[in-house]
Amino acid sequence: MKNSLIVQKYGGSSVANIDRIKAVAKRIVKYRRKGHSLVVVVSALGDTTDELMELAHKLTPVPSERETDMLISTGEQVSVALLAMALHGMGCDAISFTGAQVGIVTDGSHTKARIMDVSAHRIRQALRRGRVVIVAGFQGINADQEITTLGRGGSDITAVALAKTLGARECEIYTDVDGVYTADPRIVRDARKLSRISYEEMLELASLGAQVMQARSMEVAKKFSVPLHIRSSFNNKKGTIISEEVKAMEEVLVSGVTVNKGEAKVTVCDVPDNPGIAAVIFKDLAIADINVDMIIQNISRTGYTDVSFTVPVAELNKTKQVVAKIVKNIKAKGAIYNKDIAKVSIVGVGMKSHSGVAAKMFDTLASKKININMISTSEIKISCVINKKHAKIAVRAIHKAFGLGSKK
Amino acid sequence: MKNSLIVQKYGGSSVANIDRIKAVAKRIVKYRRKGHSLVVVVSALGDTTDELMELAHKLTPVPSERETDMLISTGEQVSVALLAMALHGMGCDAISFTGAQVGIVTDGSHTKARIMDVSAHRIRQALRRGRVVIVAGFQGINADQEITTLGRGGSDITAVALAKTLGARECEIYTDVDGVYTADPRIVRDARKLSRISYEEMLELASLGAQVMQARSMEVAKKFSVPLHIRSSFNNKKGTIISEEVKAMEEVLVSGVTVNKGEAKVTVCDVPDNPGIAAVIFKDLAIADINVDMIIQNISRTGYTDVSFTVPVAELNKTKQVVAKIVKNIKAKGAIYNKDIAKVSIVGVGMKSHSGVAAKMFDTLASKKININMISTSEIKISCVINKKHAKIAVRAIHKAFGLGSKK
Repeated sequence: MKNSLIVQKYGGSSVANIDRIKAVAKRIVKYRRKGHSLVVVVSALGDTTDELMELAHKLTPVPSERETDMLISTGEQVSVALLAMALHGMGCDAISFTGAQVGIVTDGSHTKARIMDVSAHRIRQALRRGRVVIVAGFQGINADQEITTLGRGGSDITAVALAKTLGARECEIYTDVDGVYTADPRIVRDARKLSRISYEEMLELASLGAQVMQARSMEVAKKFSVPLHIRSSFNNKKGTIISEEVKAMEEVLVSGVTVNKGEAKVTVCDVPDNPGIAAVIFKDLAIADINVDMIIQNISRTGYTDVSFTVPVAELNKTKQVVAKIVKNIKAKGAIYNKDIAKVSIVGVGMKSHSGVAAKMFDTLASKKININMISTSEIKISCVINKKHAKIAVRAIHKAFGLGSKK
Repeated sequence: MKNSLIVQKYGGSSVANIDRIKAVAKRIVKYRRKGHSLVVVVSALGDTTDELMELAHKLTPVPSERETDMLISTGEQVSVALLAMALHGMGCDAISFTGAQVGIVTDGSHTKARIMDVSAHRIRQALRRGRVVIVAGFQGINADQEITTLGRGGSDITAVALAKTLGARECEIYTDVDGVYTADPRIVRDARKLSRISYEEMLELASLGAQVMQARSMEVAKKFSVPLHIRSSFNNKKGTIISEEVKAMEEVLVSGVTVNKGEAKVTVCDVPDNPGIAAVIFKDLAIADINVDMIIQNISRTGYTDVSFTVPVAELNKTKQVVAKIVKNIKAKGAIYNKDIAKVSIVGVGMKSHSGVAAKMFDTLASKKININMISTSEIKISCVINKKHAKIAVRAIHKAFGLGSKK
């Protein structure tokens, strides 16, 4: 296995200050000593991106996306140069590159560009010379030589794309947690680190609020079948491998329980139950760029129906404005807003082949006298919206009911 | 004169914070309203470059020059994006570019690259669309697509090169002073702002410690005959025009008096007066990269001579180490170091055609009982090294003797 190529990605918290950059450099040197070739993708230092955007917003309420990319792409450029210097300081040959320099070509959409092509010519050349290659994550260049950025989770996407292009043996995603857990260890004390999980499950977990990886980067990893190793940059423990679904995974009924308290429930009341009415509501919300999550339309009895959905709490004010207009347009009775909700979900590929999982979840909540407000399901996920104050009890009870704890 | 192109350059102090960036944007909008086309070159915000280098030095004692360029070129990229956003916030169409994007092609020498070519294709295109073009100063790209920086005064060089390439009507250099003065107004109360000065004079003033512009950028302006307008970004006063020597300038005997307290005098004593001995001394100093300024070799009487020279105080420790070795090698008696010196100089193209200027300067110092330690002259400059404690008195007396004050 000697000399095989590893792609590593270090997030902002892993390079938040000089000491952490040195720690990352030490880890890289250790890998080099073992004979590995290394391509290292780095995010911007700590909160740099947020700080730059704060400056931008002091100058104009809605910064141009092109100029935003020009501005925030500097964050990763600083990181790669500093990490290269740290490696030089330890006597390790290394060279840094911007996204443009290594030919990460994207489409034209600023602040959320998609990678179209990776040439990686300069990376291969530098690797042949025995150098550690450090690449600025999150950024690319489009056909017009404009700097683009890849949006949230962009550095992960860079790492995955490079791992695919270079045929890396492994793609390690370093973060500030040890891996993916059966539940948030701050809520469930005996939550267990998963050694393996499928892309599909991780995708659900990501979109459900597990902070480990963005859904978009998971999709790219899945598309290219790049196995990921999520691990901590603060210790040497094995983390969680995210890969294609394997037989063993199906035997596990539920992989994890998550809770998301960041959403609010909106109910548009007494909507005339005409065909196409839902389309009207959600088209207007889409135009306003509001991320609608769960949608429930109650059964109509009297020619009128209630339509409920959830939106991120941060978008609730904007939602209220849009919904007020919708209510008037479609002649609904009014709208009710509820911020005191939590969405508790279970995820597991085993659900596909096992029945009774949903019933067990509902039973567990009932036994704790917790009322279910909304339900939505997918092939490998069941979500229940409940009162926010019951969230912890619900997660702990479900975690126990499905035997997810480490004492099992 | 409408619609003519102006290149403006704003230094770090002019864009040190959000309020100053807004003030610069306002000035640009005013120019646009007058119908001018504008290309604006910007330096990094305030002390950004120094702050980045501080981080670098915490990682490695001698940061690689390539990675240094990768690191510090981000400073200007941040500035241009923010200034573009500030202009957008005022409803003014603007677009920012990196040095690479506008085709500022340099040679390969990192941290002190020279501009080889400026394509400016994208600038012309953006100007045609009625946009204010904002270009990152101080940076370029070499033939290998590596980011390079131009060294001290690099943003001025960018502005001059663009003014030349685009055939700009004027190149305004905005700084934190109103222009070039006959002397430092903090020392000489009635110092007068010069309305015009020649490149040659400004070159001497720059190298003599007037902080307005770096000698290198003056050389480039002179080479391409780009007239510069040095002015303040904090007010609307006319500044100083730097241009080719014109007849009127010759009628002024002396344009300005400067003082430089940043040098130390080194005397190598009792050097065997053999041919080539000076070459030995100054070759070793050059190898050690020490910037030697004035050199005086006293007349030999006994086969031995004293060789004196000045070096920047910051390089004195390094100089002492080199000189100690030289003394041993050439069998000199020893060396004397003096940090308590000041170099007072007068500059003026009028000296070329007027005699008696030097005598008047020496007389003036003598009348104040100030001893002259070293003298050096050029066609348009006379410098005297004196005791540091007499510097202020000397500058004021000379300024008065040549009638430079505003009450004249």
